[in-house]
Amino acid sequence: MKRYDHVQMGVDYYPEHWDESMWEPDIKLMKETGVKVVRVAEFAWSRLEPTEGNYQFEWLDRALNLFHQYDLQVVMGTPTATPPRWLTTKFPDVLPVFANGETFHPGVRGHRCYNSTSLREYGSRIILRLAERYSEHPAVIGWQTDNEFGMLDCHCDACNTAFRAWVQAKYGTLDEVNAEWGTVVWSGEYSDWNELTVPLGGSPHQNPSFLLDFQRFQWDSVVAFQTAQINILRMICPEHFITHNFHSYPQRLDMYAVGADLDVAAFDYYPNTSPTKQDTTPYSGALSLDVTRGIKRQNFWIMEQLSGSPGCWMPMWRTPYPGLIRAYAWQAIARGADTVVHFRWRSAISGAEQFWHGLIDHSNVPGRRLAEFTQLCHEVNRLSDKLQGTMLKNEVAILHSHEEKAALDIQPQAEGFDYYENIKQIHRAVTKLGIGCDVIDLRQPLDGYKVVIAPNLYLLDEEIVRNLEDFALAGGTLLITNRSGVKNINNIAVMQPLPGQLSYCTGVEVLEYDPIGVETHVIVDAEGNPYECTQWCDILRPVVAQPIAWYGDDFYRGTPAVTVNSFGKGQVYYFGTHAEEKYWSVLLENLAKEKGLLRFEGLPNGVQASVRTGDQGSFLFLLNLSRESVIVPLPREYSSLLDNKIRSGELQLEPYGVEVLEI
Amino acid sequence: MKRYDHVQMGVDYYPEHWDESMWEPDIKLMKETGVKVVRVAEFAWSRLEPTEGNYQFEWLDRALNLFHQYDLQVVMGTPTATPPRWLTTKFPDVLPVFANGETFHPGVRGHRCYNSTSLREYGSRIILRLAERYSEHPAVIGWQTDNEFGMLDCHCDACNTAFRAWVQAKYGTLDEVNAEWGTVVWSGEYSDWNELTVPLGGSPHQNPSFLLDFQRFQWDSVVAFQTAQINILRMICPEHFITHNFHSYPQRLDMYAVGADLDVAAFDYYPNTSPTKQDTTPYSGALSLDVTRGIKRQNFWIMEQLSGSPGCWMPMWRTPYPGLIRAYAWQAIARGADTVVHFRWRSAISGAEQFWHGLIDHSNVPGRRLAEFTQLCHEVNRLSDKLQGTMLKNEVAILHSHEEKAALDIQPQAEGFDYYENIKQIHRAVTKLGIGCDVIDLRQPLDGYKVVIAPNLYLLDEEIVRNLEDFALAGGTLLITNRSGVKNINNIAVMQPLPGQLSYCTGVEVLEYDPIGVETHVIVDAEGNPYECTQWCDILRPVVAQPIAWYGDDFYRGTPAVTVNSFGKGQVYYFGTHAEEKYWSVLLENLAKEKGLLRFEGLPNGVQASVRTGDQGSFLFLLNLSRESVIVPLPREYSSLLDNKIRSGELQLEPYGVEVLEI
Amino acid sequence: MKRYDHVQMGVDYYPEHWDESMWEPDIKLMKETGVKVVRVAEFAWSRLEPTEGNYQFEWLDRALNLFHQYDLQVVMGTPTATPPRWLTTKFPDVLPVFANGETFHPGVRGHRCYNSTSLREYGSRIILRLAERYSEHPAVIGWQTDNEFGMLDCHCDACNTAFRAWVQAKYGTLDEVNAEWGTVVWSGEYSDWNELTVPLGGSPHQNPSFLLDFQRFQWDSVVAFQTAQINILRMICPEHFITHNFHSYPQRLDMYAVGADLDVAAFDYYPNTSPTKQDTTPYSGALSLDVTRGIKRQNFWIMEQLSGSPGCWMPMWRTPYPGLIRAYAWQAIARGADTVVHFRWRSAISGAEQFWHGLIDHSNVPGRRLAEFTQLCHEVNRLSDKLQGTMLKNEVAILHSHEEKAALDIQPQAEGFDYYENIKQIHRAVTKLGIGCDVIDLRQPLDGYKVVIAPNLYLLDEEIVRNLEDFALAGGTLLITNRSGVKNINNIAVMQPLPGQLSYCTGVEVLEYDPIGVETHVIVDAEGNPYECTQWCDILRPVVAQPIAWYGDDFYRGTPAVTVNSFGKGQVYYFGTHAEEKYWSVLLENLAKEKGLLRFEGLPNGVQASVRTGDQGSFLFLLNLSRESVIVPLPREYSSLLDNKIRSGELQLEPYGVEVLEI
Repeated sequence: MKRYDHVQMGVDYYPEHWDESMWEPDIKLMKETGVKVVRVAEFAWSRLEPTEGNYQFEWLDRALNLFHQYDLQVVMGTPTATPPRWLTTKFPDVLPVFANGETFHPGVRGHRCYNSTSLREYGSRIILRLAERYSEHPAVIGWQTDNEFGMLDCHCDACNTAFRAWVQAKYGTLDEVNAEWGTVVWSGEYSDWNELTVPLGGSPHQNPSFLLDFQRFQWDSVVAFQTAQINILRMICPEHFITHNFHSYPQRLDMYAVGADLDVAAFDYYPNTSPTKQDTTPYSGALSLDVTRGIKRQNFWIMEQLSGSPGCWMPMWRTPYPGLIRAYAWQAIARGADTVVHFRWRSAISGAEQFWHGLIDHSNVPGRRLAEFTQLCHEVNRLSDKLQGTMLKNEVAILHSHEEKAALDIQPQAEGFDYYENIKQIHRAVTKLGIGCDVIDLRQPLDGYKVVIAPNLYLLDEEIVRNLEDFALAGGTLLITNRSGVKNINNIAVMQPLPGQLSYCTGVEVLEYDPIGVETHVIVDAEGNPYECTQWCDILRPVVAQPIAWYGDDFYRGTPAVTVNSFGKGQVYYFGTHAEEKYWSVLLENLAKEKGLLRFEGLPNGVQASVRTGDQGSFLFLLNLSRESVIVPLPREYSSLLDNKIRSGELQLEPYGVEVLEI
Repeated sequence: MKRYDHVQMGVDYYPEHWDESMWEPDIKLMKETGVKVVRVAEFAWSRLEPTEGNYQFEWLDRALNLFHQYDLQVVMGTPTATPPRWLTTKFPDVLPVFANGETFHPGVRGHRCYNSTSLREYGSRIILRLAERYSEHPAVIGWQTDNEFGMLDCHCDACNTAFRAWVQAKYGTLDEVNAEWGTVVWSGEYSDWNELTVPLGGSPHQNPSFLLDFQRFQWDSVVAFQTAQINILRMICPEHFITHNFHSYPQRLDMYAVGADLDVAAFDYYPNTSPTKQDTTPYSGALSLDVTRGIKRQNFWIMEQLSGSPGCWMPMWRTPYPGLIRAYAWQAIARGADTVVHFRWRSAISGAEQFWHGLIDHSNVPGRRLAEFTQLCHEVNRLSDKLQGTMLKNEVAILHSHEEKAALDIQPQAEGFDYYENIKQIHRAVTKLGIGCDVIDLRQPLDGYKVVIAPNLYLLDEEIVRNLEDFALAGGTLLITNRSGVKNINNIAVMQPLPGQLSYCTGVEVLEYDPIGVETHVIVDAEGNPYECTQWCDILRPVVAQPIAWYGDDFYRGTPAVTVNSFGKGQVYYFGTHAEEKYWSVLLENLAKEKGLLRFEGLPNGVQASVRTGDQGSFLFLLNLSRESVIVPLPREYSSLLDNKIRSGELQLEPYGVEVLEI
Repeated sequence: MKRYDHVQMGVDYYPEHWDESMWEPDIKLMKETGVKVVRVAEFAWSRLEPTEGNYQFEWLDRALNLFHQYDLQVVMGTPTATPPRWLTTKFPDVLPVFANGETFHPGVRGHRCYNSTSLREYGSRIILRLAERYSEHPAVIGWQTDNEFGMLDCHCDACNTAFRAWVQAKYGTLDEVNAEWGTVVWSGEYSDWNELTVPLGGSPHQNPSFLLDFQRFQWDSVVAFQTAQINILRMICPEHFITHNFHSYPQRLDMYAVGADLDVAAFDYYPNTSPTKQDTTPYSGALSLDVTRGIKRQNFWIMEQLSGSPGCWMPMWRTPYPGLIRAYAWQAIARGADTVVHFRWRSAISGAEQFWHGLIDHSNVPGRRLAEFTQLCHEVNRLSDKLQGTMLKNEVAILHSHEEKAALDIQPQAEGFDYYENIKQIHRAVTKLGIGCDVIDLRQPLDGYKVVIAPNLYLLDEEIVRNLEDFALAGGTLLITNRSGVKNINNIAVMQPLPGQLSYCTGVEVLEYDPIGVETHVIVDAEGNPYECTQWCDILRPVVAQPIAWYGDDFYRGTPAVTVNSFGKGQVYYFGTHAEEKYWSVLLENLAKEKGLLRFEGLPNGVQASVRTGDQGSFLFLLNLSRESVIVPLPREYSSLLDNKIRSGELQLEPYGVEVLEI
């Protein structure tokens, strides 16, 4: 299979958008800029098959030949995210249907039901043709399936039928469905399969077990939709790798199942350019990259990287500040991206995305942003060999789960309680401490980690519990937070004291709980320091655990809020409340000392550190993702990969300054 | 008929939600807790008739027998609020239709069109069977019709046809309809009956006379829907009383007509648990209880009482503070509830209402809330005999009308003008003064009251006017506010100076008016004290009335804002503006002195007083519905019913403290 | 043709709303009040044709005869804005359809699809009958077409078919459509005409070129709808003038094309009565009047003028402050209104507009507002002869375009960027300086102006560019702002540096831009004075222009923000950013001096000045549109037209005071 682990730069290019006379000048300039890879054709269905069965590949042949002539490699997209109008007109079943029965008519893109027979059939046909035509093309190295899978909650007849079959396959009988979903509440029992439908409109709410399974059904639909494409590509193009470009998190999507069939995951990375978000964007961006790396627990691609101000149906964002484009591309590499493809070469002059700016403006006059990108390409090309094969090796992991998120979205727990925002807060605390952190699926093996943080384990099954217990028993430090153990995996409340199946390892019992929501309450640690807490207060009875923080107010003042339990060779913390970031920082810093966690100490605000390690050495990335110039105290001398000079003492990082040091 | 006037406690229990092995332990514990009554089966249709005509009553027999065995009495619900899926699938006409033509599909509950022939038919069938089976059951004492009637504004074909018939019955001819609704405006005249439909979607507004009659039609539909059920129950179960559980006010519902057919009204009482609402919740709660007592002008039941944090499709509320559950149950009794049924025994482990917490948590471990409830049950049981037959006898009444509310909702008068909020403000002022107050339908006889407050009498007919005039002529004190006399009962503006038909008794004329909305203006009383006013300013010409407050600003500065008129043996006040609560307090306090109104003076903030009186004596309830400890100055010695000890001087009430004193 | 240029007062009256016995007293009182004109019948279809073909004109005959008897002139409305129920029931194609397929059912008014065959047919029939019946009636002088045309974005079958034909007529082939709309982006290419539809629901956005043409199609639909009516009226009633009443701006409507077929334009003027909007309402009102005068570049009518508090489905507004009704009527005349018709004589007692108050309240007791109106009528009648034929002759124009607005609405540029609000700001600056200003269609000839301000010329074609260049070449001063020259007229981005086709005359090049949105940045002028700027920052390279202001912050600090270029005999300014009003004031004041612009200097806040000039002289209007008394310094002696006395020195204007001075 062609390699996909080069550390290199790319661009997204749409030959079909431009007069053919512009192709060669464009491609020549890409080459000069230092670009190695181009993604094409993922939205070109109407040009590749203008009418049913009328395949037109010659233009794409010419484009691919030009790329090859200039030694650029190409990733092709399968075009199913934008079914053409002849298809949707002839086969309206391609279009998704909302819960109220209204159709999602074609407009911009994404107008595709994953369970549509027509889309599956016509999609397979064109993918087969494309695969056959380009399996041997010397420029083509891989494929992107569809584009930015997302959940639409389609309610069409095909989905209805498929959902019914899915439920039947899972539960067998309606008696079992009624029992596992608890439909008896409010007379929702099914007596005949035809009574069971996807969730239709009108009612302000639905049975939460049913809703969660509907989500699972949809996740499976996406996977099945992709599998059909992958089967063709694997058969016809065995030398080509396959990826998919995920976009902004959190998504209601089983990224792990989608990723399982891919060779490599990809992410579309558009950090917010606004100075008003400067304190949060770099950290939520770091989380997105860590989440992407966790999809397959390996390095990944950026398939679309910020190149200018985004804008579309929404007002345009601020233009990227000088250095921002380069710094965020380096952040992606620092956190495990190998190839970084910028979106897009030049801004579109027509269509709904005209103001989602590329590296070059509509004027086609190369400007500041292309110059910055050119510098970036040259730097990356220079470091490429050294970085190839390097990976992040972290000692801390945060556990993430689309199932937990889906279940917590279905039934909001307390005002201000947000599963993914809670993960963000913890990840930000870890990142600011200069500690590397993986973000992985809840069900992944945990070997090799010293500390695992598992927030809001709302739904549990035995497998999850055993995985966590085994980790702690073997000496790991496990941090668990409130709203854990509340439900079984079918979204039914357990009939035992909380944290339910985690009571054993945490050694605590929740006597009762208080959903304080956006109110600010207080906890106090053993030293008497007060910290704010919000969202939730479990009133804890430590069974065998030790309290380490106590509530400072309300009727449960003085009762334990946070506990720690010795469990096997390890320890299990339980957070009965949502403590402010500062509390996490103090606790995690102590843990880092105690456990001897690898850490880059002394990071100033806005600077992020990470390390890629491989056979060729270890490389420390220091990134100033702020508009202020900062000083980073270096603990010793390093050699900079950027200019091969020595850095030591106080390292000055300009706004959006980047440093790569050999450890 | 079985009695429904015991002062006692109950719980809502759903045997069908739990494994049958849990029934007896549950019921045994209820018994020990002090519970006397259980409500069952109001959502059990799918379990009672799992498929068409397949009635399954054996499980309910067993449950009822168990209740009887433990000497608990049972109120049964008719199950029509949750039509089962076999019914809605087979007869989609059961489902309501929105104005835009979309269907209200089954989801949680309330998916029932009151005019659906199928629902009426299948509903009658199962009610008949239930009635026949349980009319003689020794545990069963009464019935609840449906559950929490509410207005859905259904627009289905059945409603369309029924509405047309309703209009025809009311007006006879289309000429009369056109005349009475004033449809000539904007060419809305009907020339054929088939042109007349329920209000369909699209237009931002509709003819207000038409909309008001559509509301009336829907109110009548609810009544007719209930009447069909009541006819069956009265025939088969003559010994059983019938109630219905109204929920949060204001509702667009003719509670008075629904209540007319009942033996006793019931209310579902969920006071807000948030400390941020602590200043308003106790008073809006008091109003809700007074409104419920006013439905039939007699004592009532609470059919669902707060037992834990509510939560569902919305985030969970705060858990009830220690004492809150008990205090609010006592508040209900203090204001006329006889039986108080707590919702629910144990939180559901499945379904959409999992987090609407019961007295016992999912864990089934009895905790703080059940302990508090147990104390409450024992107290109530101890006082039960003394309180039986006692009622509130108030000298002040506030007049309420669903018709006024509906009309004022159809045409908002000014920003911030809200009919029910205005009632709340006045009721709060009265309650804080320690004066008992009834809240009754506008059309009720007013004998026995000394002071009647009638806000915003927007729609008027002769009957209403005569009722009010007669009250004042006979010596009563009547308080009328702005936006009175604006319309005839068909929502057509009257062609005479405001307050229209009330000009005679008020002795004022509104020269013009200024909808000031949320702006704050000023009125000044005879002593020169300024008060804020909002919403509305009538510029008054006192014809024979005396001004008692004047505007302090704007172009009508110095003109009268509030007047009083001697009328017969009584007095009629007219409020041209919406004065702040403080103005009402001062004015009402003066009135209380002048008229010698019964009053408990000196109530600290957060404490409410009320008196139940009967053959066995008079009992004063003092309730601290706040989180602060307070001192209530007692004017003399009393004996406490709670511990039979003497109270005098400064009575300390702990947070959520309760006192019941013998007068 | 009957004259429509009398300076006179009128009222809107609905004989069909009132008992016939009230007509003569009403009309007699109108006469006494000083009214000269009445508008009738624009919503009377159901009374004129109660059932299909059953025409009932006798009642209208009697009303018109009464008007004639009292020497009042009548403007008749064509009744198509309120199709009667028999029509919409029989021909549902009359009703508009939303993008999601839902119908706009009859409710209040405006339930009419402009492309409905049935509406066109039945509308033409009744208009023909009305025209024939009243062409010779001595009272009737003219017609109003329909009422308040507005865009509904209808998506019915008729619109779909008509749109397809419209596109075909414009572009000929689908290849051309695909090319001109750039549909290749996201596979949106059409391969068959039946794939092309109006924009249907579901997608969050659409192709912007397609959306813009859909807007144009709808504008043309309105024009065609009106043309069909005008053709009948011109043929049958050649002596009657024709107008249409536009309402609040901005509208998505081609007012210029609608106006082209009219003899005179009309406006419905409802200035906001709230004191909280006192600083903006007088200026946005002035702009509305100037926009209306610009529709045909001639004097106009007010067909509905504020007479009391408006209210309807929204809460009522404040009642007009004493003097407000009169002052705003004078403002209309001061800015080019000849006839001012007040809406409405008396408030409706039924229907959805009951609280849109007329001059007389429901009570029918004449009050303060009618008294003020009576004074106004007498003043106007007294000045009528002098003012007849006078017009505003301004030296400054602001260019306005519904196309620019539509395109900028389709793709919002930056948060806070609003095309019409930007015009408002500039117009307010000009007005506060005491400079008269026309607001005209972008494509109008510019002869006679000294200064032309053309904000946000986003879409351009050669005609527009040449018009602007010619103006400047000939010596005019042209002010152009950012987001100009971005697109061709089909909403496709141009592939040249901005401001695109305006680069030549402005002499600048936009190197890049920064959509700063609602952030506040700083520019500094040559004197070092700082001013705030928002929305947008073009980073400019002056090619031949001179910079006159520079950015004061961000990474482009010190680069030019505003430039001026000598161009032929004139000058062209370019504003790269949206400067605050103060900057505009300073710059325009300097320009006024430099160019010797006519100006009334020294206006206090809240006072507006304008001049009407004709054969009979020039008349200066000074209007205090505030609630404060103010002093206006007069530069010399004037004779007042109101009382024929001399004014000089410090002129005191009471709240809402009016002065008309002979120059």
